[in-house]
Amino acid sequence: MSDEKVIANIKGLGIDMIDEASSGHPGIVLGAAPIMYALYANHLNVNASDPTWFNRDRFIMSAGHGSALLYATLFMSGYALTIDDLKQFRKLNSKTPGHPEVFKTPGVDASTGPLGQGLAMAVGMALGEKILKERYRINSEESLIDYNVYALVGDGDLMEGISYEAISFAGTLDLDNLIVLYDSNNVSLDGPTTKTFTENVRARFEAMGWDTLLVHDGTKVDAISHAIDKAKKIKKPVLIEVKTVIGNGSLLQGTNKVHGKCLTKEDIAQLKAKLLLPNEPFYYDEACLNYMRSKIAKRVDEKYKRSNIDYRDYVNGKCAGDKTLASYVFNNEFHYNLFDNDWHFEDHQKEATRNTNNIFINYLSHNIKTFVGGSADLGSTTMTYVANLGDIKASDYSGSNIWFGVREHAMGAILNGMALVNLKPYGSTFLSFADYLKPAMRMSALMNLPVTYIFSHDSIFIGPDGPTHQPIEQLAMLRSIPNMKVFRPADVKELLGCWQVILNSNHNPSCLILSRNDVLIHQNTNAKNTILGGYIYYKEQEKLDTVIIASGTELTYARNIGYELATKGLKNFRIVSMPSIEQYLECNDEYRNNIIPNNVKKIIIEAGSSFGWHRVTKDNTYYITLEEFGVSASQKDVLDYMHFSYDEVKEKVFKIMNIK
Amino acid sequence: MSDEKVIANIKGLGIDMIDEASSGHPGIVLGAAPIMYALYANHLNVNASDPTWFNRDRFIMSAGHGSALLYATLFMSGYALTIDDLKQFRKLNSKTPGHPEVFKTPGVDASTGPLGQGLAMAVGMALGEKILKERYRINSEESLIDYNVYALVGDGDLMEGISYEAISFAGTLDLDNLIVLYDSNNVSLDGPTTKTFTENVRARFEAMGWDTLLVHDGTKVDAISHAIDKAKKIKKPVLIEVKTVIGNGSLLQGTNKVHGKCLTKEDIAQLKAKLLLPNEPFYYDEACLNYMRSKIAKRVDEKYKRSNIDYRDYVNGKCAGDKTLASYVFNNEFHYNLFDNDWHFEDHQKEATRNTNNIFINYLSHNIKTFVGGSADLGSTTMTYVANLGDIKASDYSGSNIWFGVREHAMGAILNGMALVNLKPYGSTFLSFADYLKPAMRMSALMNLPVTYIFSHDSIFIGPDGPTHQPIEQLAMLRSIPNMKVFRPADVKELLGCWQVILNSNHNPSCLILSRNDVLIHQNTNAKNTILGGYIYYKEQEKLDTVIIASGTELTYARNIGYELATKGLKNFRIVSMPSIEQYLECNDEYRNNIIPNNVKKIIIEAGSSFGWHRVTKDNTYYITLEEFGVSASQKDVLDYMHFSYDEVKEKVFKIMNIK
Repeated sequence: MSDEKVIANIKGLGIDMIDEASSGHPGIVLGAAPIMYALYANHLNVNASDPTWFNRDRFIMSAGHGSALLYATLFMSGYALTIDDLKQFRKLNSKTPGHPEVFKTPGVDASTGPLGQGLAMAVGMALGEKILKERYRINSEESLIDYNVYALVGDGDLMEGISYEAISFAGTLDLDNLIVLYDSNNVSLDGPTTKTFTENVRARFEAMGWDTLLVHDGTKVDAISHAIDKAKKIKKPVLIEVKTVIGNGSLLQGTNKVHGKCLTKEDIAQLKAKLLLPNEPFYYDEACLNYMRSKIAKRVDEKYKRSNIDYRDYVNGKCAGDKTLASYVFNNEFHYNLFDNDWHFEDHQKEATRNTNNIFINYLSHNIKTFVGGSADLGSTTMTYVANLGDIKASDYSGSNIWFGVREHAMGAILNGMALVNLKPYGSTFLSFADYLKPAMRMSALMNLPVTYIFSHDSIFIGPDGPTHQPIEQLAMLRSIPNMKVFRPADVKELLGCWQVILNSNHNPSCLILSRNDVLIHQNTNAKNTILGGYIYYKEQEKLDTVIIASGTELTYARNIGYELATKGLKNFRIVSMPSIEQYLECNDEYRNNIIPNNVKKIIIEAGSSFGWHRVTKDNTYYITLEEFGVSASQKDVLDYMHFSYDEVKEKVFKIMNIK
Repeated sequence: MSDEKVIANIKGLGIDMIDEASSGHPGIVLGAAPIMYALYANHLNVNASDPTWFNRDRFIMSAGHGSALLYATLFMSGYALTIDDLKQFRKLNSKTPGHPEVFKTPGVDASTGPLGQGLAMAVGMALGEKILKERYRINSEESLIDYNVYALVGDGDLMEGISYEAISFAGTLDLDNLIVLYDSNNVSLDGPTTKTFTENVRARFEAMGWDTLLVHDGTKVDAISHAIDKAKKIKKPVLIEVKTVIGNGSLLQGTNKVHGKCLTKEDIAQLKAKLLLPNEPFYYDEACLNYMRSKIAKRVDEKYKRSNIDYRDYVNGKCAGDKTLASYVFNNEFHYNLFDNDWHFEDHQKEATRNTNNIFINYLSHNIKTFVGGSADLGSTTMTYVANLGDIKASDYSGSNIWFGVREHAMGAILNGMALVNLKPYGSTFLSFADYLKPAMRMSALMNLPVTYIFSHDSIFIGPDGPTHQPIEQLAMLRSIPNMKVFRPADVKELLGCWQVILNSNHNPSCLILSRNDVLIHQNTNAKNTILGGYIYYKEQEKLDTVIIASGTELTYARNIGYELATKGLKNFRIVSMPSIEQYLECNDEYRNNIIPNNVKKIIIEAGSSFGWHRVTKDNTYYITLEEFGVSASQKDVLDYMHFSYDEVKEKVFKIMNIK
């Protein structure tokens, strides 16, 4: 059996999938099949019959349009994919969607498609391995965790800013468990990279603390395999540039025309002839299959058995008392009752929620082995720095604080990678910079990953830094992401409730929105009610006419307006605190109709865009919100300028309620 | 007079501004003042009394937290800023906001603050200069346009992915009119860059086609100035790394503690003593002022005069017939009546709006000298490539197509830079990747820049590429940006109307949302009505009961449902086409109450998030929208899965209207 024969099978299957789907990307299938074969057959430590084995090597197809290539490779490697599955490529509910989707296909370790995300997630997985390795040590030499992370990237991935950020981060932290295979074909979707991408990629990586290797001929399995061997021994992250020809063997090879369009029947026929394959759709050679599968098994079986024995010994011995290990790290389900701790908060004390949040960050970091995170160079002001547990550094990954640098976008994707290896990660920056992370946050939501994004400096209340730093539409943006939960607690008690929900959310990301300005601890807030997303903070004394709804610091506005209304003898109003619209919308109709009834006035007070509140109130809604950019001035002047001072908000409420 | 004395004045003023405001960033003021002095006194070709001179050198303070340093430098350079203006630092309606804001302060060429944006805008300005230089040539040697672009960046800027993208782009296009001054002090907000940023920055830039220079001692004006001299002669973009000490002279110098907090009174006192300044707030030496101002004048006066003569000659001669020159390039006001052309479109013809849009892109590129743009490597599928006008290349900037590469985020900021030098730029990618551009788009909106963002593949209708490529919440995200106008035309006639608005929008960015799927050309659509944002597409025959509102391709759904309703004898419904909510909201109440009256049912049909439509309909609203992620499948299966097939949408409408 020759390697070339197996590769021909992979190519043939990939091309047939695209042809059957009438859609897909043949260029990478024909160009990069030898790379995939070399990696899976000779290096990747995986067990196709246990695709979620916790100690497997990870592979990320960062060039997500290479899905057909990935699926064909997985099929030949023995994963639970059938020829019928391959025929269902890009079809509804198949195991073979248009771009790779984690949890849908055995052997797919991350969802990819938007370029750059996959590479940055691979960095997160590599960092995750380093962290887990320290936290689950068997002895000073060995750990339960010991694997490499591989990614396949194209020119497009490397042009994306997020990939630069992630690469620079990986270089700084010296992630020598990371090997990136660069399908270097000098062509991107629109044309040759001479028009767009003329940098010396390897020199750039070397400048960023990586080692690099070059494989001149990407059709040579031995050369690729030799390079991977070398890379595994290098004590730095490694980029292997493999020179390939896009669409190799197609009549359109070497051009952008073969990137994303189906091959013609004629082209397929001549290609298969070249590859010595019968011109028969979905043909594969059983002997090739067995050859590739046995290569993997021969290499991995021993390690796999040993890993499971170690795990059993570990669980029964060293960590018998560590519930988080079995329940989370290795099964990806996590339950934690924060209410078991005896929390005590002083009512009426004033403190910014970014500060009180530091209590929880510290508590969780000390109590949950997998809870780890950091900040994009704003930890000292988002207040997410953990005391006494040290930093995660190139020389020592046993600490707790990750220094992401000013790399918000990569931070998001790195958190995704960490969550994919079953850590419970968090990252922080200012709310206005949430924009920088959005593409990665969408991926968290799409992959159902329990990542926690912490955003402080949550509104115009920050004052003089001006409109670039004053979020307006960011809350709306976050709330609009499907499967994302946004929490904006009013005080430390609500914050406790938010964390209780966040910690037990195994299948969605969360945003925790915190204030820089001081808030009082309310008498009427309640951690347990917070879990419901919205609850009655103050109940009307007579027939209800108006519901005032607020979140975060604006609950103080609502409370004080409530006092003034009561002083005036008003008894027909209710105040609802709404720390999480998404949690509230999960409550049943009865609850919601009870909290915010129809046919009464609803007044929403929030220092942000009105977008998204229509989900909460169906009729008679008045918005006291912000729809324009802020301004640089003192807090007081900003609030005046934006017509959002307490007095002005109060007057608006009074007017809506027809009070003089 | 010594340079050091002037620099001491700049430092003293910067520190006093921060002290007076009780907020700001002293670290960069004290570290980078010599860089700013060297640049302004010895190199930057500007005329402080004509700060918008079209042929001035541009300077961008990319490290926007260096605003106090910038304002102090501008003051010493003779711009129309008074000591009172400096005292108003970070106060409401001052000329000296917390971060630099273009059009608010004479001499400020771009708004900055979110890191990386400024550097990428500088790249856009440098590209803009290259393009304008070709388009406004006096003869084969000389052009009306001939200036350099300078930026000051810090470590934070260079960690951001957007800066990498922009740098790689600048290297590819060989922008030798760009000189970046790197305030290299090894400290960022959270601490030393040894923890976050260990790459060899100069080696990285060199790998990306830049030349680099190093100034070992950032307190030496001569060394800095000599480097800038050298850089101006180098036929590549140049990075000058200037080693500085953050907060130089403060008791906290060299640490992150001096980055963003006011100095104590004691620290200010000892600092001023060191600087040989009297300890007196807002002190400056008139002789220093005169010295610096005369240095600039002596260097620039001749060039300035010559430039204005050239301009007058040019306008009166060569380009007498070119209205766009005088009206736009040099005055930043642009009017164009697209309706003057005799457009003819065939009703009922079916074509995707991404295709029909190519007609306009071509027309405008051929007819408007300043209309120029490109795509982030998707031009061949967003269909924004201009035929017959060639590409913009490193060797020749006279073409029309910009190849941004897979660099969406930098594309946004580069477009901002181009708009800031009075081009009328556009850029294109898929709508789902709008996420990658968001931070730059927000800057367009904040700066009131007429940038056009073109997003094709506008909905789940794209089918098999799956959820990563299917926009859901993106339309809402774009609409939520203050001062952003979003257009989603139903067909080519509405597209014409959209372009008419976009071309004449001088003070806001626009998004043009286009379909990949074919749409028919409606009989009832209307280019001129499109300008109103929303209009009656089909009018009820009897008393109005229900208004069906749709945008883009979904107008076809509405139209067909309308036919079915009419067939059933229904006469009480109206169909409204809503290509732009923001345009519609600018119409007066009377118009809007007429188009979408209260107290009737409103049904919104749009293949995207419901967020934001509450601005259009105040009551009785039913949403047929999409709130969950899509799926990889054929178009038909995707629509079924998302309950958005024509039949299902029709059934929903019927149900809302109580029709069996």
